[in-house]
Amino acid sequence: MNQYYTQLLPYLERNHAYEAALALLSWDTETLAPPAASENTAKYVGILSEEAYHILICDEVESLLKKLSSKKEQETLSVSEQAVVRLLQKQFKKLSCIPPKEYREFSELCATAQTVYCRAKQNAKFEDFAPTLEKLVDYTRRFASYRAEKNDNLYDLLLDEYEEGFTTDILDDFFAKLREAIVPLMKQVIAKNDTIKKDYNTRNYPEDIQEGFCRFLSGYLGFDYNRGVIAESEHPFTTSLHNHDVRITNHYYSDNLESAMFSAIHETGHALYEMGVDDTLSGTPAGTGISMGMHESQSRFYENMIGRSKEFWEPLFPKLKATYPEELADVSLENFIAGINKAEPGPIRTEADELTYPLHIMIRYELEKDLIAGNCTVSDLPELWNKKYKDYLGITPKNASEGVLQDIHWSGASFGYFPSYALGSAIAAQLYHYMAQQIPVTDYLKEGNMVPIREFLRDHIHKYGAVYPTNELLKKVTGEEFNPDYYIRYLTEKYTKLYHL
Amino acid sequence: MNQYYTQLLPYLERNHAYEAALALLSWDTETLAPPAASENTAKYVGILSEEAYHILICDEVESLLKKLSSKKEQETLSVSEQAVVRLLQKQFKKLSCIPPKEYREFSELCATAQTVYCRAKQNAKFEDFAPTLEKLVDYTRRFASYRAEKNDNLYDLLLDEYEEGFTTDILDDFFAKLREAIVPLMKQVIAKNDTIKKDYNTRNYPEDIQEGFCRFLSGYLGFDYNRGVIAESEHPFTTSLHNHDVRITNHYYSDNLESAMFSAIHETGHALYEMGVDDTLSGTPAGTGISMGMHESQSRFYENMIGRSKEFWEPLFPKLKATYPEELADVSLENFIAGINKAEPGPIRTEADELTYPLHIMIRYELEKDLIAGNCTVSDLPELWNKKYKDYLGITPKNASEGVLQDIHWSGASFGYFPSYALGSAIAAQLYHYMAQQIPVTDYLKEGNMVPIREFLRDHIHKYGAVYPTNELLKKVTGEEFNPDYYIRYLTEKYTKLYHL
Repeated sequence: MNQYYTQLLPYLERNHAYEAALALLSWDTETLAPPAASENTAKYVGILSEEAYHILICDEVESLLKKLSSKKEQETLSVSEQAVVRLLQKQFKKLSCIPPKEYREFSELCATAQTVYCRAKQNAKFEDFAPTLEKLVDYTRRFASYRAEKNDNLYDLLLDEYEEGFTTDILDDFFAKLREAIVPLMKQVIAKNDTIKKDYNTRNYPEDIQEGFCRFLSGYLGFDYNRGVIAESEHPFTTSLHNHDVRITNHYYSDNLESAMFSAIHETGHALYEMGVDDTLSGTPAGTGISMGMHESQSRFYENMIGRSKEFWEPLFPKLKATYPEELADVSLENFIAGINKAEPGPIRTEADELTYPLHIMIRYELEKDLIAGNCTVSDLPELWNKKYKDYLGITPKNASEGVLQDIHWSGASFGYFPSYALGSAIAAQLYHYMAQQIPVTDYLKEGNMVPIREFLRDHIHKYGAVYPTNELLKKVTGEEFNPDYYIRYLTEKYTKLYHL
Repeated sequence: MNQYYTQLLPYLERNHAYEAALALLSWDTETLAPPAASENTAKYVGILSEEAYHILICDEVESLLKKLSSKKEQETLSVSEQAVVRLLQKQFKKLSCIPPKEYREFSELCATAQTVYCRAKQNAKFEDFAPTLEKLVDYTRRFASYRAEKNDNLYDLLLDEYEEGFTTDILDDFFAKLREAIVPLMKQVIAKNDTIKKDYNTRNYPEDIQEGFCRFLSGYLGFDYNRGVIAESEHPFTTSLHNHDVRITNHYYSDNLESAMFSAIHETGHALYEMGVDDTLSGTPAGTGISMGMHESQSRFYENMIGRSKEFWEPLFPKLKATYPEELADVSLENFIAGINKAEPGPIRTEADELTYPLHIMIRYELEKDLIAGNCTVSDLPELWNKKYKDYLGITPKNASEGVLQDIHWSGASFGYFPSYALGSAIAAQLYHYMAQQIPVTDYLKEGNMVPIREFLRDHIHKYGAVYPTNELLKKVTGEEFNPDYYIRYLTEKYTKLYHL
């Protein structure tokens, strides 16, 4: 092994111990920690983030990275090692321009911002969160400006953190195509919505029974309970300490059959990605999914392409009916499939159906872009939010809690993250198109054999962790870079058929 | 505030962030983490322990501690600040003589030792754990020898870590008194054991119902759910990140009514101690219970003096019967009180009744003392264990799992810890004696009013954290230092009355 690379490893290992501890603190806060703990936790997160920062952002690492970027040394590195160096250089570049004191203050702010946000959401008072959000926007802009070169668009720099190579230009084009295809399709669909009955969905489904069925579903898809756990939290999420410790959460509502089931499938898609990362990469900067968009492609692939298909439910529906014999007595497989795919515009992104979902993302994207560019202020957001919901989805949220405050991401300063949700669906459609050419996906689903599907994704995507950037990986698997046409075509065909348009 | 003390605070704060993260990693391992995570967790624990070590064991802290120990500076410190300096000096002295590399190796060994121990226990194979245990004994002896002065007894140095001021001489005397009083008392009791029926205890008590009742019990005693959480683990324990984040666990067995209930009461006793520590102390070296013995005095006080008394159950027994109407239909309060106090020698310490319990501790104490002194080897332990159980309790464990492997403590190198379990019961009896002279304890219990009891303990013990050493604190509360006579008298009177001897 290259001597400089060998010298780099102890830094990576130490840094990873902090990252794991920080991931655990965050997981614990979301799932279990007592309310009164949050103030101290924020302090710990600040301290440990700063210490982790100092491990990577130091003269020794800088010097090693410099040596490792020479052509001579690069040639002695494996593809994975090159990726680790590349990702580390990127991280170094991003962090080293931030003064440590500011980084610590920012980390502490994020840890408290979440609590402030949650209270504001509970009381549906945007003004209670606004001052914190302003600080978060300021830090985000300031940090991005530290690493910006002349003419750099700040929002492009943020996008690059979540989705390397995807700029405002590409996204503007993507969302324009989406808007053009989906808004009219949605109108046609809504007009025929009373042909689909789904009153079954809000009958009585006891939470502990749901939990059991969701646990079964995750295992059915390949979730490895030896390497992962499932807990409860306000909103479902996935986190990973390393590829042998992957955690998902869910939230069970006794008056909603779908919610937890599709969350379980979705989060399992994320978890399979993290569990599938090669052991040799785990714990390094390349030891996790390459990007938010690629991650979301895995969760959406399982949730939508697989989990909302008739073929998937063919072997499972009898078990579902047996789990809730009374509530589902009058529901046929055909009813159920129509129900879980029914499209209805609503105010809440996480409850949106597959068709209207990307419009929610588009709205957040447009607002974020303007906010970071300084074309609007934090205080403008609620009004702009409501206007866009009226324009694109035809609805008005009844308060800030189901409007601009609905999602937690901004409280963690995750600006530039949202577009990846829509990219994920589009990437999933592109992957699905090519996967179906190579393996008989629908046959496997009907047989209840999920193994070849998971193995295909593991061998083509998961095991590489963050070694290949999204477009490079897509080209390896599908022969072309990101192409939103598959997604537009998939949605159009699916909903045309489903609604007999 | 003293300038040197002020300079010390950032070191304490940083160190505490690590201690909290380490406590959380350990809690998580015991309650939730997936099995495959343990190898990496051990690595993280090693790394973070070493980093925490370097924060305190450095020239700056040494220099500040030296300045702060001068008479002139001491006079400017408050009692709490003096305690923090004293405790930190002790920790510094203990840690600074251990080479950092050895400390890290030792921390990693402890983290893996637990897994090795658990497997060995599962398979009842002492020989699988023996090599690890030998290493743990070696490290413990070596670390103690680093700080030993001429003529120091190594085991006394270990005892001092858990119970300052309590030496082998004091414990030898304590256990001799106990043995003399309890072994004959136990024989009288066993002879009359068929007068007490407790077959009710092993009827069917569903785990979720137990969990609910235990949750109620903890709250009844004053557990603050805003500052604490309860989870499940193989063995019940309490841990604390700080006074606003105190955590207890329990384990529910559907064929055992008592087990989880008394664990809940016991762990709540520990939790109330940690929750009661003054806010100004939390996060400092004085921000936790002073010693293992004093901690155990709080848990045992609640479990035995309070939780096994008739007065405690008078207002609660109707609720217990209503919770399990069929199983407890034929059980009267008198039956129940006799049942929960029934004394029967058995192989397992954690299942032992109040009377035989200290004999289990005595055996472990005798073995530890010999092991550390080099008077016996690890491989001698199983045979010695069985012999002592035969001699003192008249029983022979059927395998190593219910014999020498029954307790996890040695896998964490907690040698010198065990005696505190017996000291705790004795201290609890001493405290109870004096508390009853000052407040009408039994009246409060009958009224279901737990507040004055908790407040008495908080104001006299909890709030001080680790400011006063055990004997000093005992003298403040009871007017005398540790005196085992109250315990002997308490057990003799209780069992004489209970069994009509």
